[in-house]
Amino acid sequence: MQSRYFTLNDHPKGMPTAELFTLEQSELPELQDGEVRIRNTWLSVDPYMRGRMDGVTTYIEPFQLGKPLDGAAVGEVIESRDSRFKAGDKVRHMGGWRDIAQLPAEQIEALPTFDVPVQAYLGVLGMPGTTAWVGLNIIAQIQDGDNVLVSAASGAVGSLAVQLAKAKGGTVVGIAGDQKKLDWLESIGVKAVSYKDKDAKQLSEDLKQACPDGFDVYYENVGGDCLEAALNNLRVGARIAVCGMISRYNDEGLSAGPGNLAMLLVRRARMEGFIVFEHWQHHNDFMSEFGPKVAAGEIDYQETVAEGLEQTPDAFLKLFTGGNHGKMLVKL
Amino acid sequence: MQSRYFTLNDHPKGMPTAELFTLEQSELPELQDGEVRIRNTWLSVDPYMRGRMDGVTTYIEPFQLGKPLDGAAVGEVIESRDSRFKAGDKVRHMGGWRDIAQLPAEQIEALPTFDVPVQAYLGVLGMPGTTAWVGLNIIAQIQDGDNVLVSAASGAVGSLAVQLAKAKGGTVVGIAGDQKKLDWLESIGVKAVSYKDKDAKQLSEDLKQACPDGFDVYYENVGGDCLEAALNNLRVGARIAVCGMISRYNDEGLSAGPGNLAMLLVRRARMEGFIVFEHWQHHNDFMSEFGPKVAAGEIDYQETVAEGLEQTPDAFLKLFTGGNHGKMLVKL
Repeated sequence: MQSRYFTLNDHPKGMPTAELFTLEQSELPELQDGEVRIRNTWLSVDPYMRGRMDGVTTYIEPFQLGKPLDGAAVGEVIESRDSRFKAGDKVRHMGGWRDIAQLPAEQIEALPTFDVPVQAYLGVLGMPGTTAWVGLNIIAQIQDGDNVLVSAASGAVGSLAVQLAKAKGGTVVGIAGDQKKLDWLESIGVKAVSYKDKDAKQLSEDLKQACPDGFDVYYENVGGDCLEAALNNLRVGARIAVCGMISRYNDEGLSAGPGNLAMLLVRRARMEGFIVFEHWQHHNDFMSEFGPKVAAGEIDYQETVAEGLEQTPDAFLKLFTGGNHGKMLVKL
Repeated sequence: MQSRYFTLNDHPKGMPTAELFTLEQSELPELQDGEVRIRNTWLSVDPYMRGRMDGVTTYIEPFQLGKPLDGAAVGEVIESRDSRFKAGDKVRHMGGWRDIAQLPAEQIEALPTFDVPVQAYLGVLGMPGTTAWVGLNIIAQIQDGDNVLVSAASGAVGSLAVQLAKAKGGTVVGIAGDQKKLDWLESIGVKAVSYKDKDAKQLSEDLKQACPDGFDVYYENVGGDCLEAALNNLRVGARIAVCGMISRYNDEGLSAGPGNLAMLLVRRARMEGFIVFEHWQHHNDFMSEFGPKVAAGEIDYQETVAEGLEQTPDAFLKLFTGGNHGKMLVKL
């Protein structure tokens, strides 16, 4: 059986382009004892993948040039030589960026049984949802009534972070770009602030107007001017959970950081980076709290869907230009 | 009775100069019930005082133009109208920047009875010592065997932080400027790295050479290039205690911050600002652990002493040009 998959043919300098990705095809080896073959139905593209393209180990192994890329995917088992899975089972695994995956059974998990579309397990009930939950609860230690600021607030993680934060009862402000995203934020009761055409000073003032008392928690997905503006609006004892700094992922060399880091001192604030994979022990807590809410339609989760394996690189690249609203997915 | 004291006649723009300070003299009001009159023998000048000169509230009330400045001091009671103190008692209080202080008794504390010179209670057994202890133990949560980096490592706080860190058994590296300070650090078993004539890249490489395994804890007193170089040398799970950022205190406007803040994410590191006055409940723990060691001569604490009240502004200004080794004091 043939599998089609993407490989990386070079390490990107700065913003990656579609030419870096090659769609390849090869015959899968015969299925071995303990292995499972899966027809993927949904692929996930995520910002953290950019870090894996540089060829250096950061917090996760780099992608190898010329080898199949990987990432989260859901699909249906088409053949199994392991007693834990049978044809037709719906599963989640890391063999993405391809149509047919063949993996050891221990790298595959059966999908939970909440009444949700299967692709939810790549977004609202997958890594992005867990990331939002861990960042707020474990890293930022959110308390009832906390005022919370979220950047990239309509993204896969941010759009869930604002809703988790809302449930705590304080003022929630979300930073986003285009009008459709701002409107969506307002529709769910989040004060929306645009970063477009603003410097850090203007953005600071707009955040202050949105939440004059300042923020107890900042959920950081962006870096750059968003971080500088957030630092200017911290309350004493604030916590910043650094989930990502997408504005910097494609920088060549180092652009300068915020000039007001001393606000950490002035406000006795804490800033902490985290990687959700190291907090996966909380995934079950997250699922028991969030799964029923998603199944009951209480969470407004957005998806941006590209159709067809060939669209995977473009879907990935759109993450860096604000082209997605909510979770970016590829439907096969 | 006359008291001589310094006032501030303007808010400094950038680096303050001696002209901003005016030595004034006035007759003290008659001593009231519950008040104590003290002849100061030692005055403390500290970097945090710079922040009080801008006329805006940060984490502490600003100094008022034309009013007596204040700060830590030790002295001898010359007259008391409170039963808790009598003439001849040695005391510590915040009525510094002057020769004779007159204060309510509840703002005065009797000096502890360790066998140390009285000025030790302004440095190694005062606010700077407590600051070093709180930063390492409470904020950075230092563990046995941790590798520790300290900037301004020969300063009042840094010189104690390196010795507290050494006692935990890991590699301790101190950043300082001139050769005398570097030699002192080496003499107490600290690896000394100079920041002089280096950019952040060179300093990063020198820190890596001094401690190839990287740092579990960074005790931050400086900011700027020191912070950038430290961020490049963090171990996974590192903690940065932000005690000060003296390199930035005299900046006019904002100069850029480090471009590599995303290292907090890559290394899952935590950075937290703190103010020792908010952790003063640990002062007794600190004194019971550190007091006996200081009295036994086990701690090598340095002092830079200016003589005479008139020298107070110059002593203060030297804090920003590296003119002090260890605690900067004024002897009256």
